[in-house]
Amino acid sequence: MTSSKEEAASKHPLRLGVAGLGTVGAGLAILLRDNADLITARAGRPIQITAVAARDRTRDRGIDLSALRWHADAIDLASDPNVDVVVELIGGAEGKARELVEAALTAGKPVVTANKALLALHGERLSRLSAAHNAPLLFEAAVAGGIPAIKTVREGLAADRILSIGGILNGTCNYILTAMRETGRDFADVLKEAQDLGYAEADPTTDVDGFDAAHKLAILAALAFGKPVEFDSVHVEGIRSIGALDLGFARTLGYRIKLLGLARQSERGIDARVAPCLVPETAPIAQVDGVFNAVIAEGAFVGRLMIEGRGAGAGPTATAVAADIIDIARGKTIPVWGTYATDVTAVRSRPADEWHGAFYLRLSVTDRAGVIADITAILRDCGVSLSRMIQHPSARSGDDVPLVLVTHPTEERAMQAARQRIAALDVVSAEPVLIRIETF
Amino acid sequence: MTSSKEEAASKHPLRLGVAGLGTVGAGLAILLRDNADLITARAGRPIQITAVAARDRTRDRGIDLSALRWHADAIDLASDPNVDVVVELIGGAEGKARELVEAALTAGKPVVTANKALLALHGERLSRLSAAHNAPLLFEAAVAGGIPAIKTVREGLAADRILSIGGILNGTCNYILTAMRETGRDFADVLKEAQDLGYAEADPTTDVDGFDAAHKLAILAALAFGKPVEFDSVHVEGIRSIGALDLGFARTLGYRIKLLGLARQSERGIDARVAPCLVPETAPIAQVDGVFNAVIAEGAFVGRLMIEGRGAGAGPTATAVAADIIDIARGKTIPVWGTYATDVTAVRSRPADEWHGAFYLRLSVTDRAGVIADITAILRDCGVSLSRMIQHPSARSGDDVPLVLVTHPTEERAMQAARQRIAALDVVSAEPVLIRIETF
Repeated sequence: MTSSKEEAASKHPLRLGVAGLGTVGAGLAILLRDNADLITARAGRPIQITAVAARDRTRDRGIDLSALRWHADAIDLASDPNVDVVVELIGGAEGKARELVEAALTAGKPVVTANKALLALHGERLSRLSAAHNAPLLFEAAVAGGIPAIKTVREGLAADRILSIGGILNGTCNYILTAMRETGRDFADVLKEAQDLGYAEADPTTDVDGFDAAHKLAILAALAFGKPVEFDSVHVEGIRSIGALDLGFARTLGYRIKLLGLARQSERGIDARVAPCLVPETAPIAQVDGVFNAVIAEGAFVGRLMIEGRGAGAGPTATAVAADIIDIARGKTIPVWGTYATDVTAVRSRPADEWHGAFYLRLSVTDRAGVIADITAILRDCGVSLSRMIQHPSARSGDDVPLVLVTHPTEERAMQAARQRIAALDVVSAEPVLIRIETF
Repeated sequence: MTSSKEEAASKHPLRLGVAGLGTVGAGLAILLRDNADLITARAGRPIQITAVAARDRTRDRGIDLSALRWHADAIDLASDPNVDVVVELIGGAEGKARELVEAALTAGKPVVTANKALLALHGERLSRLSAAHNAPLLFEAAVAGGIPAIKTVREGLAADRILSIGGILNGTCNYILTAMRETGRDFADVLKEAQDLGYAEADPTTDVDGFDAAHKLAILAALAFGKPVEFDSVHVEGIRSIGALDLGFARTLGYRIKLLGLARQSERGIDARVAPCLVPETAPIAQVDGVFNAVIAEGAFVGRLMIEGRGAGAGPTATAVAADIIDIARGKTIPVWGTYATDVTAVRSRPADEWHGAFYLRLSVTDRAGVIADITAILRDCGVSLSRMIQHPSARSGDDVPLVLVTHPTEERAMQAARQRIAALDVVSAEPVLIRIETF
């Protein structure tokens, strides 16, 4: 700690081997170049990329990397004696990314990665490898881009019992829902625009069907609760079924619709799910719009905490990757899931039908006498208590009109049973839209 | 990293000597007791309070501390061989708190403190002591209670050049401004209520005159920019001059009024100030109400990041203190201001009149012909350009009425000159209220 800035600069650099030179990899190279002075001072030694592995050597990445050692096979970074830290930016839960991370950890080499799928699906195995070989595995960039969500949970809240964790974890979905609300346009239309703007992939499945958010949620839950959550037990719903109508009704009811990842721990176990939710329009998370992400944690002692910022993009993601690298340079090593307990066996999320909460149900019904009586009878029979109802009668009897029901908190099992029976009614003309209500 | 939870529990505990057993000290003891299992697992060893120093040994603190070693003089904690870490919760920039922290660091003992005034006023000296004796000095609880603001800046954003840092740093002021806005009541009235509710001290000066926020801002600025800011150069204004009228006019103009601490770095130097500001009502920070705090950082690569949560209270503050202690148990040591550069000489904030921005000016003027012409002529002569004006003519000519002027961005020096000349006009009957406008 007595070393001066000049001494820091004269120290042996920490040498990085970077696998994958897409947006984030190139962004990291630019960040390390532009902020070299302050990064050296803060890390206590220079940080340099010495080797890279990427498919295309000639692509213009906005920075000259030709002087570096290029590996044809990323795996070779794990055994390169001139690489101190492996930075994995290839992506994907299997294949080259997984091979490289496992090889590096097995070789006792610290790994920094932005790979959410890898951590979400193989969290148990990777944490064992990291512990067995005393090789740190850091992944701040895997969740919510530039937001230091991992550090907040793993270190900032280390003394507290975390009751719930989650938030707005996918910028594409938040952009789409925000645009739908602001313009009244429908999902397909806004998705197309998001694709044109580069906010959504050509194949939008990972984003709009909730899997990207679920990967991030699984990682946050593992950190919050000290052990991985089996990914296939996480309940995942996307936003394809949300219509412009729902955003309008939500507004009328004093809510906004957000795709939320939420994991809760109670004496009954862990509940982890990704689903569109109605949140009160006055809740701080309701104000997080566009491509922004937000992470909310609730602790027994600390209460509620929310961080919002840019969840994607070269700059924000590169700062998260580089912060992990600086932690390694500073000599920090914390177990993967933030605990020294050896029991990191993954646990399962409870089935969705065991949860409890209030619901918004939108139906398309034939506007004729007795319809509401039939529907409310089913709710009553299923033990679901009604809180509010919105119905706009049509000009002519016999037309299809939307009918919105809001329930009091109830068992999800009961609500799903009621939904099924209601969907089967002759007067119900389309698949009902069921959205959970979260009251922050 | 291969140690099991059982092994962690069987390790030598990290032994704390706690000075000061007020709300936070007692809260820390309760937190360490209630969360002992998970803290042991996350820290890799048990954390125990072994010695304390507090004035009153018999007071009921909600937890039995009679079995601990009590020191009559807090200074003795620094030399107690059974104390590994000194936790300073006495408070105050001088006296016993400062003596203890300096003695502990000099003895090479890690120190954890919640003392914002101490760090804000003696940051340079303390960082030198910490470095010279290789004794970590951690102070997460000094800024924004349970919000891990320090960790976010010092570690989460370690790779980025921070352009600005600040936020809502005083819960008492935010509570008062929120209540004034919501109820239309005036400052004195709401302050009285806040005192009755325990949200404000009997002597509210430190809070409502901005000094508490300024201490926190000085600490954030030192972390963001890598060296302390001389506290007496920080511009400090409180909220006493804000009237219910101003909150109403702000609403009309599409703003809310918040007491903000803001520090910016540019090629011209560092600007650090605490002052009430108008912020657009749609800005995320405008939504942070009541006793909540929020910290906003803007980095060159990461963009804007905001964290909000509870800025005070036993639980939130104790989690921050304990997170620092866990960092020490995990073997983390980072220099006080996050940089290994030895030049930690404090820098001065630029004088307020060199800043640049838009302003809100509320005058109380005699409602008669020519008044507005006189006032706008002064603004023109001072080179201040007017953007908007609100005037409600009174029932009878000759009455005093409020007149609100909003300027385009201008030199603060020019604005202050205009304000002085306007205040000297016969038709201006009370001290003008001048509030900066911040556009997030």
